[in-house]
Amino acid sequence: MTIQLEAAQKMLLDMVQTLGTEVLPLAQCSQRVLAETVTAELNFPPFDRSPLDGYAVIAADVQAARPDSPVVLRQIDMIAAGSVSRAVITSGTACRIMTGAPLPSGATGVVRVEDTDFADGMVRIFAGGGIDQNICRAGEEIAAGEEVIQAGTVINAGVMGMLAVLGKACPLVYKKPKVSLLATGSELVSPDMPLAPGKIRNSNSYMLSGQVENAGGRPAFLGQARDEVEAIASVIAAAPACDMTITTGGASVGDYDLIGEVFARLGIDILFEKVSIKPGMPVLAGVKSGKMFIGLSGNPAAASISFETLIRPVLLKMGGRQRWQRPKIRATLARDFCKSSEARRFVWAYWWQDGKAMLVEPLHYQGNGMLKSAMGANCLIVIPTGTPPLASGSEVDIELLAEGVVR
Amino acid sequence: MTIQLEAAQKMLLDMVQTLGTEVLPLAQCSQRVLAETVTAELNFPPFDRSPLDGYAVIAADVQAARPDSPVVLRQIDMIAAGSVSRAVITSGTACRIMTGAPLPSGATGVVRVEDTDFADGMVRIFAGGGIDQNICRAGEEIAAGEEVIQAGTVINAGVMGMLAVLGKACPLVYKKPKVSLLATGSELVSPDMPLAPGKIRNSNSYMLSGQVENAGGRPAFLGQARDEVEAIASVIAAAPACDMTITTGGASVGDYDLIGEVFARLGIDILFEKVSIKPGMPVLAGVKSGKMFIGLSGNPAAASISFETLIRPVLLKMGGRQRWQRPKIRATLARDFCKSSEARRFVWAYWWQDGKAMLVEPLHYQGNGMLKSAMGANCLIVIPTGTPPLASGSEVDIELLAEGVVR
Repeated sequence: MTIQLEAAQKMLLDMVQTLGTEVLPLAQCSQRVLAETVTAELNFPPFDRSPLDGYAVIAADVQAARPDSPVVLRQIDMIAAGSVSRAVITSGTACRIMTGAPLPSGATGVVRVEDTDFADGMVRIFAGGGIDQNICRAGEEIAAGEEVIQAGTVINAGVMGMLAVLGKACPLVYKKPKVSLLATGSELVSPDMPLAPGKIRNSNSYMLSGQVENAGGRPAFLGQARDEVEAIASVIAAAPACDMTITTGGASVGDYDLIGEVFARLGIDILFEKVSIKPGMPVLAGVKSGKMFIGLSGNPAAASISFETLIRPVLLKMGGRQRWQRPKIRATLARDFCKSSEARRFVWAYWWQDGKAMLVEPLHYQGNGMLKSAMGANCLIVIPTGTPPLASGSEVDIELLAEGVVR
Repeated sequence: MTIQLEAAQKMLLDMVQTLGTEVLPLAQCSQRVLAETVTAELNFPPFDRSPLDGYAVIAADVQAARPDSPVVLRQIDMIAAGSVSRAVITSGTACRIMTGAPLPSGATGVVRVEDTDFADGMVRIFAGGGIDQNICRAGEEIAAGEEVIQAGTVINAGVMGMLAVLGKACPLVYKKPKVSLLATGSELVSPDMPLAPGKIRNSNSYMLSGQVENAGGRPAFLGQARDEVEAIASVIAAAPACDMTITTGGASVGDYDLIGEVFARLGIDILFEKVSIKPGMPVLAGVKSGKMFIGLSGNPAAASISFETLIRPVLLKMGGRQRWQRPKIRATLARDFCKSSEARRFVWAYWWQDGKAMLVEPLHYQGNGMLKSAMGANCLIVIPTGTPPLASGSEVDIELLAEGVVR
């Protein structure tokens, strides 16, 4: 049974749960997904503070100060960053204050040190207008009680800094989905082995491991298995626990006879067998005891697209993300695309801007192997079902790859 | 001395060398940078092979085959993927062949199994046109001797697969630059400590650690140091070896008096002190024994932009990348930007496409703290020197962040 991509996505997404959580030191949280909504316990800044080096004063005292008619005040204290002064500013007095230091009691403005001159305990103020703006107010950036970061947020550099501001030294983050990868095919050998006649190296497991990592998962390698139900089933059954198992390759007539038998042998319930996309139509999806089992084509072009369109969203959801769509934009084909597309088609491609036009070049053209295309891609072109060959200049949808190539 | 951004970038890039290399198991190489150009030792595919399940035949034998007038051939062998047949196809004979199996000697085409019928050792062929296309030729994707992947390539999923194809089980990759991070400021406490009066938490080191990781580096935390030359110098002097040391914060008048003294005490030669950008002008850059020392502002807005514009390219070069520019496009402001820009200005922003228009919204507006802007950004707006306030609808350059937010 062939089903539509959206139906297949929904079936898988509805089936999986977001994984459990773990507490990690903040230093290890870059690019992880936050599993708790973080509320500010305190204002930030926690106190009125000076954004510059200068003198804390009563603003009304110095409002009339001019270079040719300075106001003279008595310095009563000096406040370094990190220190608190017990001084109280009254009319006629000032406090030397450093960047980041808390404002002393009574102060209503800060004069820049460049606009002052100090001698014998007295400071002369040469400019005093608008100095009430030179205060960072408590709670100006963050108010106590504010929900500052939502659960499901990817921890980028800004979020790292904000978690530190909020004192979240050990945030709760989602676990990374662990994905076992098994390549099936009697022709396959590990990349570290010499090639006997008739053999090729297992590349699908390595390509998919990169895709799993990009989707926030942890790949686990189960190696290669011969095209025998017993051999494949026993490797899967003996594998360490994981959240998802992906096989590549089937055998003989109807790509999934063999993997279908393996899944049956292991008591895995089949959800669907084919998805209406090209490449990547054969996708045997099954479930057992809440764990997901996916059989992909042994053709790298098909396996990589099935993964991107169908499996990646599932891993992102498992890993706690709120969104699993890639950024999508319209772009103009810079080269003919000669194939017609009976099913929705995905094409590895490279986009760039020329003037105001967003251009895109399909990389999967004649003579260029699929892995070469995937190596150089920074987007995927999405061509709707029933589209004839497309001439250069046609408009297409593209999905941007964050981990794409810059040239 | 204030220097232009390009001059500062060039000075730093010219000073640093690409780091050394290490050999890693391929499974650990995702997103690392390849340090060797990889040449194919063999053709790929290594032999003529069948892309489908069917029958290997002599194409001329079956050219006239039609559903109502099948051609009948004698099956002389069956070839599974991974096996080699000693059979020789002669006129009147055929070999059953599986996807990925090597073509037997003499065969010049493969008939799809769907177009055949088998009984009693004989196969009936119902369609035989164009079957010479059903062969993947040896070397069709990769020719022996071809330079397939260049040194400096970032190992994405496609490259992972290609390295496996080529038998590079343990590629040579560049080491990741190790960057020590020290926050200076007597007001700073670690994020896991309670806040005494006048104190705030060290957020810069955590924000920068995220930026270092995004630039392919390995952050090392040196904690916080009080605003004292001796304290700061001794932490830096005692730190484990690294490729670059970044401090944040200085103290008192002229942001870098203190760090300038620290660098002098440590015998670090100063390259420059200020760069003509906003925010992020104060950047004290120094070098000693080939190691780089950078003093950034304690203001997170300034530190983050100095890092993105100036330090990130240096880390990318150290880590073996050939390119350190971000993808840059033109976009249209979707909101007024009220500040004028005497120096080149960088603004955290969010871009999206609306119809064919690329729109961008500056996030660093009034009332929104800098870290909140960085949390939600997917690009940086670059505003040239001497630009007045910009009205909604103005065109601007934006640099895309790969690790940006999707909403």
